Amino acid sequence: MQPKKNIVHLPVYQPGKPIDEVKRELGLTEVIKLASNENPFGYSPKAKEAILAAIDQVSIYPDGGAVELTAALSAQFGVEPNQIIFGAGSDEIIMMIARAFLSPGEETIYAVPTFPQYRHNAEVEGAVVIEVPVDETGTHDLKAMLAKVNDKTKVVWICNPNNPTGTMLTEKEVKDFMEAVPKHVLVVLDEAYAEYNVTDQYPDGFALLKQHKNIVLLRTFSKIYGLASLRIGYGVGHPDVIRSINQVREPFNTTTFAQKAALAAASDQAFIDFCRESNAKGIRQLQAKFDELGLPYFDAHGNFIMVDVKRSGAAVFQALLRKGIIIRHDPSWGYPTKIRVTVGSEEQNNKFLEALEQVLSEVTV
Amino acid sequence: MQPKKNIVHLPVYQPGKPIDEVKRELGLTEVIKLASNENPFGYSPKAKEAILAAIDQVSIYPDGGAVELTAALSAQFGVEPNQIIFGAGSDEIIMMIARAFLSPGEETIYAVPTFPQYRHNAEVEGAVVIEVPVDETGTHDLKAMLAKVNDKTKVVWICNPNNPTGTMLTEKEVKDFMEAVPKHVLVVLDEAYAEYNVTDQYPDGFALLKQHKNIVLLRTFSKIYGLASLRIGYGVGHPDVIRSINQVREPFNTTTFAQKAALAAASDQAFIDFCRESNAKGIRQLQAKFDELGLPYFDAHGNFIMVDVKRSGAAVFQALLRKGIIIRHDPSWGYPTKIRVTVGSEEQNNKFLEALEQVLSEVTV
Repeated sequence: MQPKKNIVHLPVYQPGKPIDEVKRELGLTEVIKLASNENPFGYSPKAKEAILAAIDQVSIYPDGGAVELTAALSAQFGVEPNQIIFGAGSDEIIMMIARAFLSPGEETIYAVPTFPQYRHNAEVEGAVVIEVPVDETGTHDLKAMLAKVNDKTKVVWICNPNNPTGTMLTEKEVKDFMEAVPKHVLVVLDEAYAEYNVTDQYPDGFALLKQHKNIVLLRTFSKIYGLASLRIGYGVGHPDVIRSINQVREPFNTTTFAQKAALAAASDQAFIDFCRESNAKGIRQLQAKFDELGLPYFDAHGNFIMVDVKRSGAAVFQALLRKGIIIRHDPSWGYPTKIRVTVGSEEQNNKFLEALEQVLSEVTV
Repeated sequence: MQPKKNIVHLPVYQPGKPIDEVKRELGLTEVIKLASNENPFGYSPKAKEAILAAIDQVSIYPDGGAVELTAALSAQFGVEPNQIIFGAGSDEIIMMIARAFLSPGEETIYAVPTFPQYRHNAEVEGAVVIEVPVDETGTHDLKAMLAKVNDKTKVVWICNPNNPTGTMLTEKEVKDFMEAVPKHVLVVLDEAYAEYNVTDQYPDGFALLKQHKNIVLLRTFSKIYGLASLRIGYGVGHPDVIRSINQVREPFNTTTFAQKAALAAASDQAFIDFCRESNAKGIRQLQAKFDELGLPYFDAHGNFIMVDVKRSGAAVFQALLRKGIIIRHDPSWGYPTKIRVTVGSEEQNNKFLEALEQVLSEVTV
């Protein structure tokens, strides 16, 4: 009854305290959570209508092929239906890519710090993980990553914009990388925050996909679309790659509510535009105050900013928590003085900045 | 960019046609689906209320630890919270068990025919699958399965009641098996249909769990609780076993709606009792007509019956479909003349039986 050797050292997810419990313990009436890059504006009212319209179908299995949603997105992006796969968040697609492509002893490359599920799933499969630190601007070091590619390399993970640093690789950088990387290497371009882009430099993943068979784009409905609780994301790639991922997929891996809400949310361009513009304003709002406080920060291209509080990030996290503001600090990032804060509504940002200013005077080391 | 060798031969899930498309193609106004063992009585109104109450939390990530639901079920079953794990249907728990426990070359044993996900997930992991035919009554042949156990055996899957045959192993049979099977073998007791039991012979899995560390019970909210579209099921086992499964779990694998609805559904005993009693009546209704038509059937302990139509099951499936009744026939069962029909409401059962009687006079081989 022994589990696989390569999983015994893996950490078990530790459930966070429910917000109500945090409130009780700290005697707070209001808690603002800017820790999980959730959408402060909720989700599209059209998606809510779609959920309500499906409320009497709960006892019926979901459409295992997500036929309607696949058709809508393939039309929207100009790809074939057999180039799209859905998962319970892009998390599950990361898991399925690892399960379909990584075998014990094969190598996989990703940045440090980046989204932790690449490493987790590669380790479950017994793959050898090759970690390449981001550069001093918090950006993927694609040259160093390319230098690590060899005959054993199976998958390279690129998170763009990168979570948790927030930085972006430009179209030229990703294009040059794709032209240099050998064809036996699958490149996963995780674009969970793509829809927040307001620059003209962001890579057109769909154009890259037309030139390179060895790309999978990952997108999610958890961020700008505000459907995090419904667990739905998707992967887009060459039909052969998507077929392999489909071979390890559970038949009913996304819920009916998720499929219906995603279909409605994808078509509500007004909501997406509002969220993108509000987020860009929020980034400027936060950066202006960080400048005033003398706190350096990385470029921010998602819905979060990584800022250097110039003292213990763990202490600042605790002090903010006591004031009812939850942000993120993770020792595994390797940035002891940095925190990651989600861009909230203007009011939430103001409350965070006010609390931060107080905390900076309290926490001095 | 080659996928794992052991997955290249695996079938890809073929999405079924949406019911609306079936209606259009066949010119039907009503279609009755008795193919997927769904609950004909829908789901608990309390679960619906719980979904509506959570409709403004869609943009917030689910509770990754399902803390509240875990607490409720651990109290209900008298086990510790660290003995329970949730999945997107018991499908996902089967996947996680395979991913945590099966390595290439190790052996796993299951009945034929049974639920196909044991085989699928074992093959993804590169395990050697050992198939043991059910006996002539459609029941697991536990002696033959035990005879196949050796030092390489890692997991034995027992589906009780068995899908698709519907037959049940008694408490004594399962108890004797557990006493005989070596302790290095993990026994998965898949009890997806447990709540339909109306006999006094059904094994008490929780009692067995107290005596044997090497058991995992699988339960689901997709069947009697009627939450199939929400994808939520659970596993119960020794804390060490559940910990290993948790090590390969994605952090946010079940949705908020699923957790909230399951919590409400688990406490609505009146709805469960009504469904169990209606199902038992429906089984008697179907069996009485099968007797009248001279069609043999297996014992039925779930919410479905496997009946021998004494002519091509595939032809009967097609003929019923043309009349707007969808049942199940699968060549991989190895029963060319048998079909599986879900127990519907009394009215649905009547329509099915009426259609079946007509079809039997049309299909003669």
